[in-house]
Amino acid sequence: MDKEGNAPRRKRVLEADDFVKGVLENNRAILAQTITLVESNAEKHFYLAQKVISELLPYTGKSIRIGITGVPGAGKSTLIEAFGSYLCDLGHRVAVLAVDPSSQISKGSILGDKTRMEQLGRNKNAFVRPTPAGGTLGGVARKSRETMLVCEAAGYDVIIVETVGVGQSEITVRSMVDLFIVLMLTGAGDELQGMKKGILELADAIFINKADGNNKLKALTTKEEYNQILHYIPPATKGWETKAYTCSALNGEGIDTIWDVVGNYVEHTKRNDTFYVRRQEQLFLWLRETLQSQLLNRFYDHPNIKNTLPDYKQQIEEGRMTVTIAAQKLLEEYDKHK
Amino acid sequence: MDKEGNAPRRKRVLEADDFVKGVLENNRAILAQTITLVESNAEKHFYLAQKVISELLPYTGKSIRIGITGVPGAGKSTLIEAFGSYLCDLGHRVAVLAVDPSSQISKGSILGDKTRMEQLGRNKNAFVRPTPAGGTLGGVARKSRETMLVCEAAGYDVIIVETVGVGQSEITVRSMVDLFIVLMLTGAGDELQGMKKGILELADAIFINKADGNNKLKALTTKEEYNQILHYIPPATKGWETKAYTCSALNGEGIDTIWDVVGNYVEHTKRNDTFYVRRQEQLFLWLRETLQSQLLNRFYDHPNIKNTLPDYKQQIEEGRMTVTIAAQKLLEEYDKHK
Repeated sequence: MDKEGNAPRRKRVLEADDFVKGVLENNRAILAQTITLVESNAEKHFYLAQKVISELLPYTGKSIRIGITGVPGAGKSTLIEAFGSYLCDLGHRVAVLAVDPSSQISKGSILGDKTRMEQLGRNKNAFVRPTPAGGTLGGVARKSRETMLVCEAAGYDVIIVETVGVGQSEITVRSMVDLFIVLMLTGAGDELQGMKKGILELADAIFINKADGNNKLKALTTKEEYNQILHYIPPATKGWETKAYTCSALNGEGIDTIWDVVGNYVEHTKRNDTFYVRRQEQLFLWLRETLQSQLLNRFYDHPNIKNTLPDYKQQIEEGRMTVTIAAQKLLEEYDKHK
Repeated sequence: MDKEGNAPRRKRVLEADDFVKGVLENNRAILAQTITLVESNAEKHFYLAQKVISELLPYTGKSIRIGITGVPGAGKSTLIEAFGSYLCDLGHRVAVLAVDPSSQISKGSILGDKTRMEQLGRNKNAFVRPTPAGGTLGGVARKSRETMLVCEAAGYDVIIVETVGVGQSEITVRSMVDLFIVLMLTGAGDELQGMKKGILELADAIFINKADGNNKLKALTTKEEYNQILHYIPPATKGWETKAYTCSALNGEGIDTIWDVVGNYVEHTKRNDTFYVRRQEQLFLWLRETLQSQLLNRFYDHPNIKNTLPDYKQQIEEGRMTVTIAAQKLLEEYDKHK
């Protein structure tokens, strides 16, 4: 019997030190278990996970963090598989994570986690992790940020965070990476209609994918169209000019361009300090967002607020109460019963 | 002596009923005093103001609410003066309010309140009110929203809310109006660089101002350029196609076009219900934002948080504490000393 009164199990229960040691040695089984621990919603796992991450913190931060988004059908998975394999061949170690809000809502996943990136997943220098299940976008973001840290401690030097650009997820991913790539197809206008507003304003580079065969000329035209549009859009990163490029996951053309652009970007932003300033700002933003979501959840989940809010909203709607008074009464209600 | 022990004043202190009656009769002096009351930061004025607004609520909501933004130099004031005078000549009653965050920070105002719109201000069918002084953007927004209600109760049927597109102010104004106009100049690309990101995505109409004399041809070209760009930007209002137009505050050309566009927009959005749905959503958003800003202010203004936050931030920055742990400790700190 262990101290919690459970029957002994064949597999020894790992302690914080076991997780830390396993991750630092890049023991893939323990790395996977550590991430499962980080993703767990159970309270007892929460404290253990935080202890492990705290001890791993000194070994984090040394990777290049790349966000990739694109409409469904843009070929994200195939592209990341080709790009990741290319990097592994160059001697890099690549971790691929995902932030996929759709899997929260529908329990299905737009990114199609189960079958994707099989080839890359088998590469000993790559580690592919599907979207954590359960919880809000904020919860998924927390888990992805911490998983990123764990992967860095395990020695992965390129972290790719993939998202489908639905709702707020691309803003969330932009806030946890150094550089953000938007994947597009030909037929710019039509495609853009399906994208979230403002997606181009988050991009440090745009890649027109599937620039192969009969589609190649069209892709080059689309690239020029985007370069025109980009003149009218303020850059996502101060001092860095966002440009459009073409690539093909199918025949591999332009995959090296992605890595060239990443290299230029990192060199440029490290030289003018934007790289470091953004990382610090991202940490503080993460703290602010965590505090905000917890303060708001505590308020809106409070039984008294849950009970009275609909009535106040109705009174506002019918012009029987001002918004200011309603807010004040709700806050009084909250304070009274806390 | 009155009940608060003050010496008697020549001017009788107004009660809630006096304010309400004066506003409903469109007594301009009392209207101005009511807005001053609404804008006051004093606690005793707060309750009186809320009582007055509550009684005015049934008389509100019948105007068309128009937001106008543009870079400094786009000629907002002159344009609004021309547009407002045109509406007064048509028999409308026009109130012009401003949300100008700059006046909060520098105590000066980009909008140059004191001397602007003198001609319109003298028109008996117009009411021009400068930005309320003091407080945060959120505070200014609350005051402007409530001032809008007061003006509606006084019978103004067109409310124009002006802002300089700095920081978040244009998003704030978009959230309190039915339709949002962005004023531009020729030289689209250059101008846009000075605008906030995403401004075009908030616009229901774009007017290229100063389309007169030697500048007219250039303005027409700029208009076409914007119409091209707009193809790539999702519309600000569902089912409504945002387009670019030209106008001249100097010679009056295109001023009638503004009113035509407003009329078409209102007819269109009332027919498909977007108009009413947005107004209801704006009320609930206002409530949510009020609650959020108060919950966050209470947290960050708490002495224990103020004292400990910098230390936690330093520990995060130096990699000695995870963001998740820091957030949790701060919330514990807050609960302990509340």
